[in-house]
Amino acid sequence: MTRTDIARRVYNHTWKLDPIIRSLLDTDFYKLLMLQMIWGLYPRVEAEFALINRTTSVRLADEIDEAELRAQLDHARTLRFTKKEMIWLAGNSFAGRTQIFEPDFLAWLAEFRLPEYELEKRDGQFELRFSGPWMETSMWEIPALAIINELRSRAALKVLGPFELDVLYARAKARMWAKVEQLRPLPDLRISDFGTRRRHSFLWHRWCVEALKEGIGEAFTGTSNVLLAMDNDLEAVGTNAHELPMVLAALATTDKALRAAPYQVLQDWNQYYQGNLLIVLPDAFGTDAFLRDAPDWVADWTGFRPDSAPPVEGGEKILAWWRARGRDPRGKLLIFSDALDVETIVETYRHFEGQVRMAFGWGTNLTNDFSGCAPRPIDGLDPISLVCKVVSANGRPAVKLSDNPRKATGNADEIARYLQVFGDDGRVSHEVRV
Amino acid sequence: MTRTDIARRVYNHTWKLDPIIRSLLDTDFYKLLMLQMIWGLYPRVEAEFALINRTTSVRLADEIDEAELRAQLDHARTLRFTKKEMIWLAGNSFAGRTQIFEPDFLAWLAEFRLPEYELEKRDGQFELRFSGPWMETSMWEIPALAIINELRSRAALKVLGPFELDVLYARAKARMWAKVEQLRPLPDLRISDFGTRRRHSFLWHRWCVEALKEGIGEAFTGTSNVLLAMDNDLEAVGTNAHELPMVLAALATTDKALRAAPYQVLQDWNQYYQGNLLIVLPDAFGTDAFLRDAPDWVADWTGFRPDSAPPVEGGEKILAWWRARGRDPRGKLLIFSDALDVETIVETYRHFEGQVRMAFGWGTNLTNDFSGCAPRPIDGLDPISLVCKVVSANGRPAVKLSDNPRKATGNADEIARYLQVFGDDGRVSHEVRV
Repeated sequence: MTRTDIARRVYNHTWKLDPIIRSLLDTDFYKLLMLQMIWGLYPRVEAEFALINRTTSVRLADEIDEAELRAQLDHARTLRFTKKEMIWLAGNSFAGRTQIFEPDFLAWLAEFRLPEYELEKRDGQFELRFSGPWMETSMWEIPALAIINELRSRAALKVLGPFELDVLYARAKARMWAKVEQLRPLPDLRISDFGTRRRHSFLWHRWCVEALKEGIGEAFTGTSNVLLAMDNDLEAVGTNAHELPMVLAALATTDKALRAAPYQVLQDWNQYYQGNLLIVLPDAFGTDAFLRDAPDWVADWTGFRPDSAPPVEGGEKILAWWRARGRDPRGKLLIFSDALDVETIVETYRHFEGQVRMAFGWGTNLTNDFSGCAPRPIDGLDPISLVCKVVSANGRPAVKLSDNPRKATGNADEIARYLQVFGDDGRVSHEVRV
Repeated sequence: MTRTDIARRVYNHTWKLDPIIRSLLDTDFYKLLMLQMIWGLYPRVEAEFALINRTTSVRLADEIDEAELRAQLDHARTLRFTKKEMIWLAGNSFAGRTQIFEPDFLAWLAEFRLPEYELEKRDGQFELRFSGPWMETSMWEIPALAIINELRSRAALKVLGPFELDVLYARAKARMWAKVEQLRPLPDLRISDFGTRRRHSFLWHRWCVEALKEGIGEAFTGTSNVLLAMDNDLEAVGTNAHELPMVLAALATTDKALRAAPYQVLQDWNQYYQGNLLIVLPDAFGTDAFLRDAPDWVADWTGFRPDSAPPVEGGEKILAWWRARGRDPRGKLLIFSDALDVETIVETYRHFEGQVRMAFGWGTNLTNDFSGCAPRPIDGLDPISLVCKVVSANGRPAVKLSDNPRKATGNADEIARYLQVFGDDGRVSHEVRV
C-alpha cells in the first residue's frame, strides 16, 4: 500500500480553481425566504448591492489577487440549483412547516443564476457592485462575502508550511472545542450557526458546524447555511434582513411612506410566513423609533432580533416594550446575533434566563476565530467588518441608520433626511467588532 | 475526483494487523551501542528480561487483548534490518564519528532477529519474559514496551468516534506546540527525544519529533529513536543503560567483584566508545556509593546522566564531586532524563546555566501527554510506569537499587545483600512518575 494517492495529489497541485462556492445553497437561509417575497411582491424593483469594507485599514485589493477574485465570482455564476437541491427545498420542512416555498417560486428558482458583477480596484480596495433586478442581485450578498473572506484567508496562509498549517488548524480545533465545553453546561441553550458570510473557509465552517452538532447536541438548533443544513440533516434557520426595510424605505416617495416602510415590510412578510418566522428586525432606522411608532399588532409577532445594540441592553428594551403593550415576554423569543462570543452568550443567557425564550445566532467568532493560532505571527487572519449592502432601489439611494451610528450606511444627505423622519433616540456609538 | 481512496479505505478496514513495530531500527540508539559491546565482550552470557508494570492499579491484561499482543510480538519477530538500514548504520556518523560499528558486528546484526518470548496472564497482568543470549534478549526491551503502550492506547481510543478522535489529536497537537513555545526562549537549550518506550503510538511519536525539529530547530539535538533519526536526518542519541552494571553485578561471584562491577562497565565501554559517548550512569546501586568508591579516572569522563533523583539535587551532587576531584564542571556534561516535563526542564536549565553543559532527554511527557485531551473522560490514556528489566544473568538474579527505593528491582534477599555492599547513603523515596 503506497502512502500517497497519486491521482489526488496531482489533481490538488494542478487544478485551475479550488472553488469557494460549491453550490447555490451555500448561502444564508433568510436569503431564500426574502427572495420568495421579493419575487412575489417586488419582481420589477431594481436594487444595487455593493461591497463595503468597514475595516479600512485592511487594503483588500493588496491582499487578494484580482484575477483569483474574478475566477471565483465567475465560477459562482456557473452554478445552478441541482435537482437534488430543488427536491430538498420542496420536500423539507422549515420552521416546522412543509411546502414553505410555492411551486411557482421553485420553478423560477430552478432556472436561477447569479447575475453579472462589476469589479474595479480603487485605493487598495475592491469596488464590487451588483446591479439589476432585486430578486437577482440580492442573492450575491452571501457568496460575494464568503469568496472575499476565504480568498483573504488563503492569501494569509500562503506563507505557512505544511507543519505550520497542521499546528494552526489543531489549535483552532482545540479552541473551538474549548468553546463547546463552555457552552455545554447551559441547560436550555439554543444556539445556531450564523457564520457563513465571515467564515475563514467553507471547510472550516463545515468543521465548526460538525463540532457543534457533536458537542452540544440538542442545544444546537440549526445553521443559517442551507447547504450545511441539507448535508448534515440540521434545521435551516433565519428570517429576514435589513435589505427589506432599506429597499422599501428607498422606494417611499413621501416622509409618511418612509415612516410606514418598516411596518409595511412586516405586513408583506406575513403574507408568506407565520409562526416562528415572524421575527421583527427593529433596528434598521433605530429601534427606539421603530418601537415608538409600531402598530399594536407588531407586539403579537413571535419575537425580535435586536442586532446592533449590546445584547442585554437591546433585549431589555424589547422586554419593556412588550410589557408596556401588555404581552408576557415569557411566551416571546429574542434572537441575538450581533458580535457574539462565548462570554456574551453566557452572560446574556444568564441575564434573561426565565424571562424570555432566547436563541443565539453565532457568527464570526464561531467560524473565523484564528487569532493566536498561527505558529508565527502572520497578517490577514483576523476577520474584518465586511458587508454587502443594498445601496439603491430603482435608482433611489438606500440608507441604514442602525442603533449604532458606526454601522450606518448611505450618503450623508439621505442619512440626515432619515434622521429627521425617525429621530436619533437611543442610538449610541459602539465599536463595530465584526 | 472522488473524495475517498477506495483501495486505501478497504485496506484500512480489512488488514489483519496494523503493525506497531515497523523496523528493527525503531528502538533506542543505546541498545545498539550496548549490543556491540555485549556482542564483543559477553557473547556467551545468558540474560533474562521481564516486563514489570509498576503501576499495579492498571490491569494490563484486562485492557489489552492477548491475541493482539501475540500478533504484534510475532510480527516484530519477522523483522530484519533492511539493506538500507544496514548501509545507513555503516555509513552514518554517530556522536561525531564515522564507522562506530565494527564490520563484524554489522555482519552479525544483518542476520539478527528478535528471539522467542514467553507470555502468560496472571492476576490481570501479563507475564512477558525473554530468555536466551544477552545479545539477543536485550533487543526486546524497547519494542516490547512500545507494543504494550500502543496497544493500551488503541484499546482506550476504541470508544471514541471519528470526530472525537479529531478533537483529541488537535488538542494534543495544540498542547505539544504550547510546550515548544515555552522552550523556545531558552538560548542554549539542548534537548532530545527519549520517548520511544512510553510513547502513545509510533505515528504520534513521529509527529512530536517533527514538531521539535520544526519548532526549536538547533536546540533539538536529536532523537534516541534510530528509525526516526534516519528518516528525519537527525542525530541518533543515547549512551548506555542500567542493564550493563546490573548484568555485570549479577555475574560477580564475590562482594569485591560486585563492588567493582560499576567501574568494570566503564572500562568495558571505553574499549568501544570515546568522547561524547563517555557518559556515566551512576545510580544503578546508589549514586553516593558510586561516587564514593569511584577511581579518579571516572572524573575524566565527559559527563554523567543522573537518572533517579530530582534533577537539581542529582546534578548538584555530581558538580560537587567533580569539584572535589579538581575538575571544572563547565567543561562537563550533565544529561537529565528522568520524568522531565517543560517546567522541570526550564527550572533545571535556569539553575545550572553557566555552571555546566546540559542536555535533556525528554521522554514520556513528550510522547505520551494526553491527559485532558479526550472530549469525554476515558480511561487508559494516562501513561503508566512500565519497564522491561534484566532479571537474571547466567541464572543469577539481577538487582537495581536506584537512588529511589521505589525504582528498585530484584528479589528482597539480593537487594539486602547489595545494600550491605553498596550502603544506603543518599537513597530517598520519591513517587515514581512514569
